[in-house]
Amino acid sequence: MIYREDERILFIRMDDGENFVENLEKVLREAGVTSGVIISGVGMLRDLEIGWFNVEKMVYEKEQISVPHELVSISGNISLLEGNPFPHMHVSHAGPSRALSGGHLFSGIVCNTVELFILKAPLLELKRVASKGFKALE
Amino acid sequence: MIYREDERILFIRMDDGENFVENLEKVLREAGVTSGVIISGVGMLRDLEIGWFNVEKMVYEKEQISVPHELVSISGNISLLEGNPFPHMHVSHAGPSRALSGGHLFSGIVCNTVELFILKAPLLELKRVASKGFKALE
Amino acid sequence: MIYREDERILFIRMDDGENFVENLEKVLREAGVTSGVIISGVGMLRDLEIGWFNVEKMVYEKEQISVPHELVSISGNISLLEGNPFPHMHVSHAGPSRALSGGHLFSGIVCNTVELFILKAPLLELKRVASKGFKALE
Repeated sequence: MIYREDERILFIRMDDGENFVENLEKVLREAGVTSGVIISGVGMLRDLEIGWFNVEKMVYEKEQISVPHELVSISGNISLLEGNPFPHMHVSHAGPSRALSGGHLFSGIVCNTVELFILKAPLLELKRVASKGFKALE
Repeated sequence: MIYREDERILFIRMDDGENFVENLEKVLREAGVTSGVIISGVGMLRDLEIGWFNVEKMVYEKEQISVPHELVSISGNISLLEGNPFPHMHVSHAGPSRALSGGHLFSGIVCNTVELFILKAPLLELKRVASKGFKALE
Repeated sequence: MIYREDERILFIRMDDGENFVENLEKVLREAGVTSGVIISGVGMLRDLEIGWFNVEKMVYEKEQISVPHELVSISGNISLLEGNPFPHMHVSHAGPSRALSGGHLFSGIVCNTVELFILKAPLLELKRVASKGFKALE
């Protein structure tokens, strides 16, 4: 894994076999990025855990996907949760059939490479409060 | 709904039951954002109206989706149309099967939350002319 | 095709019948953009060539799609490869069934319009080395 920054953008390249979410959280802590927007990510992931929120039961229904998938899109944001940067991410991914599936990303292992870009937004001071979702500070 | 801005980014959080497109247009008018790029959106939507343009008949074929779906991606832009900010948006969304569907977003109701980020681009002065699509001013 | 820039964003509008990848590479060369992030793209494409990387055989399995599809998302980046700007792009697209397919974009023809936005990142000096994927310069 490598990462580079300019004044506004954090770029992270992860390599084959790396844990995507754990490495992302590690970089965010190291770079001190606690408020930002995920603007682009391409590459491949395998051993994905994806969730779809069941609003009647108020729980995530989860699915494990072991086969490598093209990471077609990643959307979301970085906020401060209990003192640490927290990534909230939704992904779409295409497997051998080229049909897309997707949802809330819980975890995944990098296959070949993932190229991720985050737009830093320190002045927005994004912060996540309790389990009630998203809240921006004054 | 709340929204916050820094010099470059407009962040909007919408809450359960809110009309997504109407609220977005309201914020854009209030904040005076008539030229921008939708860079990220996650959350959930229900009661979606999605369209796929039939190029032979030159009409949108529309579909209604009532069940809550994870909002997996939202792409598009904000331009000035007949004096008002106009959002042009394409979405992908995952329902209980985790399969993705998507297309042109006409309307939707927020389920739980939607977290949306727009990169303001006032100097591009994006403007939409008649029905001929997209045109940037000099 | 038209394109406009502000200090940070490159906007490209392509028109019906234009070759998407060739035109994009032409604009990037003309505008001197060799390092950037694709932050949004909507419109329609036809005659797509999409790939899914088979990690066991280390080759792209490709698929041709002639029917017009809504371009629902486009993610990726611009880097310098052998002296020229190189776009690496993953797309999702919805056809008449509204189901999404997608993967690595090799080529496509614009249908009606495509509205594309790139965030320039000259200070990141993104550079692609050999066939080993992505590398950012010091």
